[in-house]
Amino acid sequence: MTGWLAVAGLGPGDASLITPEVSAALSDATDVLGYAPYVGRVPAREGLRPHPSDNRMELKRAADALKLAAEGHKVVLVSSGDPGVFAMAAAVFEALEASPEWQDVAIRVLPGVTAMLAAAARAGAPLGHDFCAVNLSDNLKPWPLIEKRLRLAAEADFAIALYNPRSVSRPDRLGRALEVLGEAGCGKRMVIFASAVTTPKERVEIVSLQDARPEMADMATLVIVGNSATRRVGRWIYSPRHAP
Amino acid sequence: MTGWLAVAGLGPGDASLITPEVSAALSDATDVLGYAPYVGRVPAREGLRPHPSDNRMELKRAADALKLAAEGHKVVLVSSGDPGVFAMAAAVFEALEASPEWQDVAIRVLPGVTAMLAAAARAGAPLGHDFCAVNLSDNLKPWPLIEKRLRLAAEADFAIALYNPRSVSRPDRLGRALEVLGEAGCGKRMVIFASAVTTPKERVEIVSLQDARPEMADMATLVIVGNSATRRVGRWIYSPRHAP
Repeated sequence: MTGWLAVAGLGPGDASLITPEVSAALSDATDVLGYAPYVGRVPAREGLRPHPSDNRMELKRAADALKLAAEGHKVVLVSSGDPGVFAMAAAVFEALEASPEWQDVAIRVLPGVTAMLAAAARAGAPLGHDFCAVNLSDNLKPWPLIEKRLRLAAEADFAIALYNPRSVSRPDRLGRALEVLGEAGCGKRMVIFASAVTTPKERVEIVSLQDARPEMADMATLVIVGNSATRRVGRWIYSPRHAP
Repeated sequence: MTGWLAVAGLGPGDASLITPEVSAALSDATDVLGYAPYVGRVPAREGLRPHPSDNRMELKRAADALKLAAEGHKVVLVSSGDPGVFAMAAAVFEALEASPEWQDVAIRVLPGVTAMLAAAARAGAPLGHDFCAVNLSDNLKPWPLIEKRLRLAAEADFAIALYNPRSVSRPDRLGRALEVLGEAGCGKRMVIFASAVTTPKERVEIVSLQDARPEMADMATLVIVGNSATRRVGRWIYSPRHAP
């Protein structure tokens, strides 16, 4: 059996942020799976079968990828950003746990530049001190747990990267998250709304938390809330290395 | 004036994890600055002057880079991993704030694969749910603040990436951090010690927190403490996407 599965991150958008390791895996692959817009970022070529799928099909997509690899295909499962951060790698291991018949599939996880790193780089260095990353999607966890984590993150004075701040089905969760952080004393903190970073639609907006509005984010936005010391220098935003 | 400064991340070690964006900047550069082992990772070529410097010279190195760029040179300041995560980008903005005469220097921050993403990929997907990153170095912040953050991170049930767990000058801080997390009820959590990931010296060790010993880490180690649900499947470690 010569099949394998590479779970790969395509970075935030631009091809210049795809690692050579991921490009090499795509060159060797026979099949590429992923959410349709991400599969669409992989250049078509003869011998590479695209398998685009819908959003929210993560577990099915992971199982399909494992099955193809078990059958001897060379499979790349693509995420945007990094596959290990709120993306497909965890879904693959969930599928593997549910179906031990695939336990001998050769799997590699190929890291990438996750959205918060690309957003931070565009703004300056807001993640230059201790920070956390919270997925605001409550599809897989209860909303009160998210609020609890935001309160504790505020108390820890972490900079906070918010993934999936908006969705069509639950447009209000970012508004509530901003309220929770405001109640926790973060009203003066700087907030970065970074959308579609490294693509032609890139847009970066910076406001204080008390002036932040959920409408500033869309489905392609990564939000970073600074810590209490995050500040401006010229057009840049950064968190000093020393303690606030 | 045609000078510029690119603050770039070289990724965890292997050249296949350096983004094409960073490689292009290095191809165009006249000068490369950084901690000596990182400058050593950049292939020598005619027309590229290396400026290696010692560890703990971050602010001086940042100022030197800004000065060279202001004089018209094309400068890349290299970090390992991502420059925005406990690395040189914040130091550059600190230097810029201290010396406004450089405010017109053209600066770009070029993201990279930070150590925790590479370590997570080798282990599986321990950062597949909410997580935080804490720099254990207390050179620039008081140790009690680090302990407070670890306690709050445990209460939030974040997976926790620990950067700079060991240093020659303060070999005991990882031991104390593990104690704090044990006292906070994390004794059964899985801990990943990932050293020199993607290099020939790579070593990944996985133990429960109660069995973790500071000697398992050296200066090249990134430690990831799982959340309460982080688990094994076969040889892999992952944090399920759903709430613990």
